[in-house]
Amino acid sequence: MFAEILTVGDELLTGNTVDSNSAFIARRLTERGYWVRRKTTVGDDVEEIKKVIREILDRKPEVLIISGGLGPTHDDVTMLAVAEALNRELVLCEECLERIREFYRELYEKGYIDDPELNEGRKKMAYLPEGAEPLKNTEGAAPGAYIEHVGVKIFVLPGMPREMKAMLEKEVLPRLGERKFIQRKLLAEITDESKLAPLLIEALERFDVRIHSSPKGFGRYIGIIIFGESEGEIERAKAFLEEKGIRFEEGW
Amino acid sequence: MFAEILTVGDELLTGNTVDSNSAFIARRLTERGYWVRRKTTVGDDVEEIKKVIREILDRKPEVLIISGGLGPTHDDVTMLAVAEALNRELVLCEECLERIREFYRELYEKGYIDDPELNEGRKKMAYLPEGAEPLKNTEGAAPGAYIEHVGVKIFVLPGMPREMKAMLEKEVLPRLGERKFIQRKLLAEITDESKLAPLLIEALERFDVRIHSSPKGFGRYIGIIIFGESEGEIERAKAFLEEKGIRFEEGW
Repeated sequence: MFAEILTVGDELLTGNTVDSNSAFIARRLTERGYWVRRKTTVGDDVEEIKKVIREILDRKPEVLIISGGLGPTHDDVTMLAVAEALNRELVLCEECLERIREFYRELYEKGYIDDPELNEGRKKMAYLPEGAEPLKNTEGAAPGAYIEHVGVKIFVLPGMPREMKAMLEKEVLPRLGERKFIQRKLLAEITDESKLAPLLIEALERFDVRIHSSPKGFGRYIGIIIFGESEGEIERAKAFLEEKGIRFEEGW
Repeated sequence: MFAEILTVGDELLTGNTVDSNSAFIARRLTERGYWVRRKTTVGDDVEEIKKVIREILDRKPEVLIISGGLGPTHDDVTMLAVAEALNRELVLCEECLERIREFYRELYEKGYIDDPELNEGRKKMAYLPEGAEPLKNTEGAAPGAYIEHVGVKIFVLPGMPREMKAMLEKEVLPRLGERKFIQRKLLAEITDESKLAPLLIEALERFDVRIHSSPKGFGRYIGIIIFGESEGEIERAKAFLEEKGIRFEEGW
């Protein structure tokens, strides 16, 4: 069950924005038992986005989540790039257009904008790759898209964190099934990291868990995250390490 | 002058850590006039890191900055992966070993660690790809590495933000020359995004600048970043847009 994440936006490549979206998506996918194997970020460029989507599809992840570049401005080109990468046409989604029309009408009535009409930029957001299922945006104008293609579940989400998060929770996760993965963060007190390594490797062999470790402070503590499908299996892996002399504290 | 950034770490792929390192690196590179074309994140896995480095080298960036996975634990495998990707041996850097020895001796004397000896994990950090120039780590144990390979300047930096930042400022940027790129953030008050697009395209054609735009709020403001090599050129592009009726506020 492996997944990839693609975030799109020039502001991510100039460092003007820190990409917290991909961390949020990664956390949710990890909780569902997906192993996020790679994250990629490219700019608002049709050719670049297209190229990287094709590379990702060649690696055959089960899930690909794309975020960013769905808005009304000229450099929001993600849907077009997705369509081209999959050799599909962009087609008008009538219900999306209606929803976008309502969205701007409401903003107009609230006095947020001066013009409720659907200009080209606003209309553009209603075009999705042929065969895509629209994903509702409860927080903004641009719909997302869900496309199954060569066995990969592709979700295209907005880049505004509030919109992306709502769509991920309400529209994406329910389509990814119920399986849960649990993670447990521990702090191992140890002054010789080299003693820990063989024990972790043994634990990985004995139990159905994944373990990540990273140094915290100057070698006195190692942060450990044990991932598993059940509390019981995590508990058994932890008990095994404790028997071998590792002292744990909860959390970090 | 294009660049790529590769960050390495399982914690980035599980969403336990937000990758602020790559944004910091991207900002600094952008200021130097580099165009960061892609950012990639992979986990602490020799084969994955190796594979992605080879893909990046095939795209022939001028600069590749890699961050993460240089520490003493068993899953810090970035230097090994770099060496393998470049078909080079890992060789002992004597001056690095001496520096690491001193580092742990100091920590021991300050009472931070119980054992000043160089165990396997600590020694491992002194091995760099053959032909690499060591980069000083003023904030931690692990040295970085600078390698020129098939015309690509490769810098390998630690993942701890404090260590990475210090090494980037002191060891990397001085090796990338003096050229400066300036950016100016503006807020364009406009209620119809579609009117802005053709003006931006015209400005790009007339002036030696790059322009990024992204919506702020619900369509009343568009955030604009103009990048250029001189204040004068940015000012001219801005004046052109103002003449065409765009009203700007500074900053966002």
